Amino acid sequence: MTTIHRVFNFAAGPAVMPVPVLEQMQRDLLALPGVGMSILEISHRSKTFESILAQTEEDIRTLAGIPSNYRVLFLQGGASLQFSMVPMNLLGPGASADYIDTGSWSDKAIKEARKVGPVNVVASAKADSYSRIPAASELSLTAGAAYVHMTSNNTIEGTQWKTLPATGDVPLVSDTSSDMFSRPVDVVRHALVYAGAQKNMGPAGLTIVIIRDDLVAISKTRTFTLPTMLNYAVHAENDSLYNTPPVFAVYATGLVMKWLLALGGLPAIAASNERKAEKLYAEIDRTGFYRGTAAAESRSLMNVTFRLPSEDLEAAFVARAIADGLDGLKGHRSVGGMRASIYNAFPEAGVEALVEFMREFERTKG
Amino acid sequence: MTTIHRVFNFAAGPAVMPVPVLEQMQRDLLALPGVGMSILEISHRSKTFESILAQTEEDIRTLAGIPSNYRVLFLQGGASLQFSMVPMNLLGPGASADYIDTGSWSDKAIKEARKVGPVNVVASAKADSYSRIPAASELSLTAGAAYVHMTSNNTIEGTQWKTLPATGDVPLVSDTSSDMFSRPVDVVRHALVYAGAQKNMGPAGLTIVIIRDDLVAISKTRTFTLPTMLNYAVHAENDSLYNTPPVFAVYATGLVMKWLLALGGLPAIAASNERKAEKLYAEIDRTGFYRGTAAAESRSLMNVTFRLPSEDLEAAFVARAIADGLDGLKGHRSVGGMRASIYNAFPEAGVEALVEFMREFERTKG
Repeated sequence: MTTIHRVFNFAAGPAVMPVPVLEQMQRDLLALPGVGMSILEISHRSKTFESILAQTEEDIRTLAGIPSNYRVLFLQGGASLQFSMVPMNLLGPGASADYIDTGSWSDKAIKEARKVGPVNVVASAKADSYSRIPAASELSLTAGAAYVHMTSNNTIEGTQWKTLPATGDVPLVSDTSSDMFSRPVDVVRHALVYAGAQKNMGPAGLTIVIIRDDLVAISKTRTFTLPTMLNYAVHAENDSLYNTPPVFAVYATGLVMKWLLALGGLPAIAASNERKAEKLYAEIDRTGFYRGTAAAESRSLMNVTFRLPSEDLEAAFVARAIADGLDGLKGHRSVGGMRASIYNAFPEAGVEALVEFMREFERTKG
Repeated sequence: MTTIHRVFNFAAGPAVMPVPVLEQMQRDLLALPGVGMSILEISHRSKTFESILAQTEEDIRTLAGIPSNYRVLFLQGGASLQFSMVPMNLLGPGASADYIDTGSWSDKAIKEARKVGPVNVVASAKADSYSRIPAASELSLTAGAAYVHMTSNNTIEGTQWKTLPATGDVPLVSDTSSDMFSRPVDVVRHALVYAGAQKNMGPAGLTIVIIRDDLVAISKTRTFTLPTMLNYAVHAENDSLYNTPPVFAVYATGLVMKWLLALGGLPAIAASNERKAEKLYAEIDRTGFYRGTAAAESRSLMNVTFRLPSEDLEAAFVARAIADGLDGLKGHRSVGGMRASIYNAFPEAGVEALVEFMREFERTKG
């Protein structure tokens, strides 16, 4: 009854999910045990869904060690909508916000914020083709800024922050769309953390926002002017049930959180992610045939970007990889090259298969 | 392997889905045939998803007879976000918009629009507890209004428009969240039609917008000021792929569209919906024990609302119904009473079971 042929999926997101989670969803798709309805059919006001939502939040709090003065919100619209919601809620009249520009997604966040108020770009890696994360010494933060915005992992360029910038009393807002819950997160160093679920946490259609109470309070002062759906305080006060949430995506993400907890939580998945990335970077560095695009100290554990000696060889590499069951290795259309996205659920066996394929490809030059 | 006990689900949305669609999704959940990945894992930039999205749009166009000067958009945020997007895109400086107030959701739409610009409520059924749809003669439309907004089916109050209001040259915008594709739709009488998918079309997490090109052009003039994610023109120009769409919800809705087409399209499902509603209203009217809350000529075919002689009997009715496998009959918390939502996928056998239960309940008085 089940179609079970599966390839290795290196897509940058939506991305690979844990097979045990897929199997559980499949088993229960016609009717949740004891409920008599599919998760696709249950009311968001039902006890069943209220319990799923509460359990998912509790598991997220356990996983990430989230203190009680932070709220966990389940929203829609992805990071792209957060690019607007952050300044619309937090950037008041007369204030400015600091943005750190580390890649294409940072740049989009900056463009949206500028529609709302003044933005200072306090560091940028653009001149280096976004190949590195700025050093602490490069940041010239603005005293009294409404917040500092950063992008923790740059999905397109394959770079990742290794330590958080020191922002003092200024609230730190981080777009963690491509590395949330791939490693321990120091929540209390942040005022707001957001991410689309579709890379490390679940299917597309859900956005998770972790927000400190004082920022919710700022948001609340804008209740009468902001569109209700874009107001953090409204969603916080309604426990993410102001309107119909993306029920299935919350359920699926909840199952992935259980899977992460069973594995040993964020330290365990971080160790797995480090091991996978090390194997791949070791192969990239082995002979010089492949060339990593990110500076060594800024290399992402999530998106491993590299080039081959020519674009012809790159095209041949992608085509042969697909034929070998290695899918999604073509880099983002804006930068070219190769990108292997190896999120939480990506199996180590897939990394080993890619390493073997790379050796074989180099040996036979396509 | 499959949990197959299913109850009759009268929930107002998210709501019952067609069983053959659930079965197909279940069969392919681990890997789409020939793709080797789950629908939950595929890139929104993949050929597979591009094809699913294009086919879903084509099937929607076929079903509803949508002319080529309308765009079909696949968005997030539900009707609640449309309450803001409609005025933010269409209500320019110096203009006003007409709203017809037929229920709680109309009222919410009005409140959001008033944050954007002047609103004229050109008819309201509020004084009659929203128990009826205003007659054509009651509408005092504003010449030169940016648009007229209506709610085609009032999910909470159980009323539904039977014929469209004549708005002349003023664009008609309709929230059809609880009756889109439950009956033929006269698209060309509208300028914009929107609906959350989670009642007649698919799971929660997807919003469908059908918008005429001239409204997209108005939206385009606001590209530099509106949040990008709230701009219709951006989504139209990017074929709903500006950012990551809710992939699974699009896929599921696509399967439901195929199911509707196979049934015979909108005329066939309308006949089925009429038959179901008639059976239920006939039982409500049979003895006077039950009392319909909507005026006879305004009765909804989707949400059948009724009362019992006392709130005690209503509580007993709900409790015994659940025990009998009839779930979700409690009315909306804001109005009380009973509500049987009998959307497209709700089986006629469920209506018959409810009618039988109602007779038995009346006979034994709880």
